[in-house]
Amino acid sequence: MTLFEKHNKTLTRALVEIENRGFWSPYFEIPSSKVYGEGVKDAANKSFKASLNSKFEIKGLETSKYIGAETSPYGFDLGITYPSLPSQDLVDASLIAMNEWKKLPLDKRAGICLEILDRINKRSFEIANAVMHTTGQPYMMSFQAGGPHAQDRGLEALAYAYKQLNKIPDETHFEKPMGKNPPIVQKKKLKVAPKGISLVITCSTFPTWNSYSAVFASLLTGNSVIYKPHRNGILPIALSVEIIREVLEENGVDKNLVSMIVSDNREETQNLVKNKKVKIIDFTGSTTFGDWLENNAPQANVYTEKAGVNCLVIDNFNDLKAMGRNISMSLSLYSSQMCTAPQNIFIPKDGIVSNGQKISFDEVANIIASSVEKLLSVEDRAIEILGAIQNPEISKRVDEAGKMGEIILESKDIKHPIFENATVKTPIILKVSSKDKELYHNEHFGPVILLIETESREDSLKVWQETVELHGAITAGVYSDDEEYLEKVEDIAVEEKVNLSVNLTGHILMNHSAAFTDFHATGDNKAANCALSNDNFVSGRYSVVTIKKDA
Amino acid sequence: MTLFEKHNKTLTRALVEIENRGFWSPYFEIPSSKVYGEGVKDAANKSFKASLNSKFEIKGLETSKYIGAETSPYGFDLGITYPSLPSQDLVDASLIAMNEWKKLPLDKRAGICLEILDRINKRSFEIANAVMHTTGQPYMMSFQAGGPHAQDRGLEALAYAYKQLNKIPDETHFEKPMGKNPPIVQKKKLKVAPKGISLVITCSTFPTWNSYSAVFASLLTGNSVIYKPHRNGILPIALSVEIIREVLEENGVDKNLVSMIVSDNREETQNLVKNKKVKIIDFTGSTTFGDWLENNAPQANVYTEKAGVNCLVIDNFNDLKAMGRNISMSLSLYSSQMCTAPQNIFIPKDGIVSNGQKISFDEVANIIASSVEKLLSVEDRAIEILGAIQNPEISKRVDEAGKMGEIILESKDIKHPIFENATVKTPIILKVSSKDKELYHNEHFGPVILLIETESREDSLKVWQETVELHGAITAGVYSDDEEYLEKVEDIAVEEKVNLSVNLTGHILMNHSAAFTDFHATGDNKAANCALSNDNFVSGRYSVVTIKKDA
Repeated sequence: MTLFEKHNKTLTRALVEIENRGFWSPYFEIPSSKVYGEGVKDAANKSFKASLNSKFEIKGLETSKYIGAETSPYGFDLGITYPSLPSQDLVDASLIAMNEWKKLPLDKRAGICLEILDRINKRSFEIANAVMHTTGQPYMMSFQAGGPHAQDRGLEALAYAYKQLNKIPDETHFEKPMGKNPPIVQKKKLKVAPKGISLVITCSTFPTWNSYSAVFASLLTGNSVIYKPHRNGILPIALSVEIIREVLEENGVDKNLVSMIVSDNREETQNLVKNKKVKIIDFTGSTTFGDWLENNAPQANVYTEKAGVNCLVIDNFNDLKAMGRNISMSLSLYSSQMCTAPQNIFIPKDGIVSNGQKISFDEVANIIASSVEKLLSVEDRAIEILGAIQNPEISKRVDEAGKMGEIILESKDIKHPIFENATVKTPIILKVSSKDKELYHNEHFGPVILLIETESREDSLKVWQETVELHGAITAGVYSDDEEYLEKVEDIAVEEKVNLSVNLTGHILMNHSAAFTDFHATGDNKAANCALSNDNFVSGRYSVVTIKKDA
Repeated sequence: MTLFEKHNKTLTRALVEIENRGFWSPYFEIPSSKVYGEGVKDAANKSFKASLNSKFEIKGLETSKYIGAETSPYGFDLGITYPSLPSQDLVDASLIAMNEWKKLPLDKRAGICLEILDRINKRSFEIANAVMHTTGQPYMMSFQAGGPHAQDRGLEALAYAYKQLNKIPDETHFEKPMGKNPPIVQKKKLKVAPKGISLVITCSTFPTWNSYSAVFASLLTGNSVIYKPHRNGILPIALSVEIIREVLEENGVDKNLVSMIVSDNREETQNLVKNKKVKIIDFTGSTTFGDWLENNAPQANVYTEKAGVNCLVIDNFNDLKAMGRNISMSLSLYSSQMCTAPQNIFIPKDGIVSNGQKISFDEVANIIASSVEKLLSVEDRAIEILGAIQNPEISKRVDEAGKMGEIILESKDIKHPIFENATVKTPIILKVSSKDKELYHNEHFGPVILLIETESREDSLKVWQETVELHGAITAGVYSDDEEYLEKVEDIAVEEKVNLSVNLTGHILMNHSAAFTDFHATGDNKAANCALSNDNFVSGRYSVVTIKKDA
C-alpha cells in the first residue's frame, strides 16, 4: 500500500471539510493513552528531561557549531544546543532536494506529507513538553495547540493545496475546429513549478500551530522548507524537523528538503531573508520585523501575521453572568498571550441595559473583574489556565501597566507548585477613556486588559472601527441583544475584515481558532496579510508552466 | 428568467473548461454577419466615424472637463475627448457602489457579469475599430484579440473566481462532540468581503485583452473597478465602460461600480495609485512604471505584466521549411508588438544538422529571413499581418536598429492602400554575438529581431536561461529533433517558469495565448507576477469574514 493509499481517507475527508467548514478535527485533542498509547506520555517526559543540557543532533545536519540558550518560562534553562550551519550551505542543500521533490507526482508528495503529519501526531506528547517549556503555555494547551490542533492546521493547508493542484491536468489535448478544414491539434504538458525555498520564521508563543500550515502548503506545492525558529522556541521546531526528515529519508527523499537554521549572527539571517532563492517567507511575530520583511524581501511572497488590537464591544445584554464567565476565560487563557485574545473592551460610560435595568460602567467592569477573580481563585486550577509568562518583557509590561489608568483588578503573582521559578501572573484590568488612544491603539501583548469608557453605544462602534482600521485585529467580539445593533457590528466587521464572535456565553471563546472551521485572521487588515488557510494561502506558492507541441 | 439562469450554461461549461484546459472559445472569433448580425459591421464602422472629433459622453460621468488626444497608428488624430473627473470624486462614488454590490448574492453578481460579457460581445465590431485605431493592430486581430478573445479571458477569470466563491458556504453548522456531554454547537456566517477599489491600468497594444481578466475577477469578488486607460488607448476602454454601465443600470446596480479616469495630471494618477481605498492594481506596460507601482502602492495587491525577453532556441531540426514558415508569422504578426513575440533567436555559430546535413548559421538565418520576406512579399496581405507601428518611438527603434549588428534583413516601409499616413514596417533582422548581452538582454519592443550566434547548442541553452533568469519572459520556443535536448529545454523552462512552445510548424504560434487553454505568463519570473488566469489571480481579491455565534 502506498502512503497515499494509507492516508487517502484522511485526505478525502479533509477535502470535504475545507468546504463544509463545520467541525472536524482529525487528530485527537485529548492526551489519552487509549489513543496515543500506554506509557507514551511518560516516555515523552523522560525524553524531554534527557534532552536538557545536551546537544540536539539532527541526522544530516551535523556540524562543529552548536548553539542555543532557551529558557523555560517555567523558570529554568533548557541548556539545549542545536546544529548551527551556515545559511548558504542550507540553501544549497535545499535547492538540490527541491529539484528532485518537485518532480515527484502530486499523490506521492501528498502521501509523504500525510505520513509526516501522522508521525508528528504520534509524537504529540514530546511536542507538548517542548511547546510548554519554550512558550509557557499550560500543559493541556501545549498538547492541544502544539500537537493535534497544529497538525489539523497542517492538514487543512495541505488540503487546500491538493485541491488546487489536483485540478491542474498533467496533459491536455487541444483541438480547435477549423470548419471544413482539419482541426488544429496540440498536446500540452502542464508542469507545476514550485516558487523556491520557503523560509518559515516562527514565533515564541505558538511555534508549531502558527507554522505547520505554511510548511505543508509549501511542501505539497513542491517547495523546500527552511525553518528559522525564534531563539526561545527552537525545541518544538527541532523535534518537528527531526520527525519530518526521518519520514523523508524512509521514503527515499533527500531529507534536506526540510532543514532548520539556528544562527547567532543577525546579519546572516537578514541575508537569508534576502537570498534570491528564498521565494516564500512565512512569519508570525512583531509588527516591526514583519514590516521589515515585507519591505526587504522583494524576491519573495511574504505571508505575515503581526500585532493587532483585538476588541470587544459590550452593549445592552441580558445574560451578564454568562458573559462574564466567557470573557474571564478569554482574558485568562495562557495569560492573554494569544494573538486572538481581546485586549480592548469598549463599554459606554453611561453603562448598558440588562433585563430592563440600567447597569453602570463600573458594574459591568466589576462583573468582568469578579469573573476573572473567581475563575482564578483556586491557584492549582489558575495555573492550568494561565500557564507562565513567556518572557520578562511581558512581565515588566504587566508590572508597569498600572500607570496607564484606574486599576479595576490588580495582577497577582501566583507561586507554581512544581516549577518554583515560573512567572505566573493573573491579568491586570484597567479603566481608560476612549480619548486615551495612545494607550488602546497599541497592542500590550500579555495579560493587560483595558476597559474603555466610550461616549455611547454608537461611539463604541466608532472607536472600535477606528482601532481596527488603523491597527488591524485578528478577532473581535460583541455582546448585544439588539438585532439592529448587531447588524451594524457585522457590517463593520465585514468592512474592516475582522472575524467576529457574537454573544459567546458557552465553551467557545473569541480566542479560539480551529482548523477546518475558523479562518485564522482574514488576511486583509493590518494584523495579518494572510489567513490560515484558504485558496490564497496556497495559490502563490507555485506556478504552472505549459509546454505545447503540435500533435 | 434571471440573468444567472440565462447564462448558466456558459458558466457551467466555463467551470469545466478551466479544468480541462483544452480548446474552448465561447465567443465566436470570426467577424461573421451570421453570428453577429447583418449590417452590424457597417453600423459599427459608421459609428466609429461619427465618434471622431467629438465628445465621448458616458452617462453619469458628465463633467465640464473633457480631454483626449489619441492618434491612430493608421495616421490620423481621433479627436475624441473623454470626461475627466477628479479622482477623489470617482473614488467616493466607487466606494458607495461597491458597498451595495458586495451585498448581492454571488449568483446575482455572476449573472450581471455574464450579461455584461454577452453585451460586450455583441458590440465586438465597435470594439474592433476602437482597438485598431488606437493600437495599430490589423483589422482581423483587432476584432479577434480585442473582441471575442478578450471576452474569453474575462469569462475565464470570472470562472476561476466563481469556482472559489461558490465553495465558500454562506452559513455553516459547527457541532463538536463532547463525549457524554451535549455537543458544542455554533452557527457561523461566512461573508465574502471585497478587497476594495480595483484600479485597472491598461496598455496601448492590447487594452481589452489584457484587462478584462482583471475587471471580471475583481467584479465577481465584490470589488468596484476604476479603469485608467493608456493615453492612446482610451476609446476601447471608454466603449467597454459605457457598455458595462448600461448593463449595471438596467439591473438596478449603481453604475459607478465601474468608471474610468482620464487625467492630464500625472500627480493625480500617482495619488490615485496610492489612495488607501485602492486595494487592487492590475497593470500591463513598461517595467519602469510596473516596478514603480510594485514599490509605491503598499496598500494594494499589485498584479503586473511588464517587459520580458522572449527567446527561441534553434537546434538540429529536419523540417526547416515549416519552421521558417511558422517563425516568419511569429515575427511579423502585428509587427512583433506582442508581449508574446520572440525577439532573440539563438543559433549555434557552427550551425545545426538537418536531415543529416550540416546547415550553417548563415543558412539558418537565411531560411528565417527569406520566409519573412516571402510572407510579406504581397503588400496587401502584408498589411493585414503587420498592422501599423503603434507609436513613433517604436518606429525610431526600427530605423536605428541597424547599428546593433549585421543586417540579415532590412526593414521595409510599406504604403498602406487606404490609410496613407499609416506607419507600416516589415521586421528588421540582425545578427549579433552571444557576447553582446547589452543588446539581447534588453527588450526592443516592436519588429526588431536578433539572431544570436552562440558557441554551441549547449551554449544556446545557457544564454537563453541566463536571459530569462535576469530579465523574465512571457514565452519561449525551441526547435529540436533531439529528445534529450528537449528534456533539458523543458527542465529550464520549468526552472525559469516560462511557457514553452516546442517544434511549432503549423498554424499555432508561440505568440498565441488563448483563454481556457494557455496560461498567459506563469506569473513567476520578472516579466509578470501573475498569470491569466488561475487560482492565484483571483484569490487575493477578496477575503472571508466569519461571524460566529452559539446556537
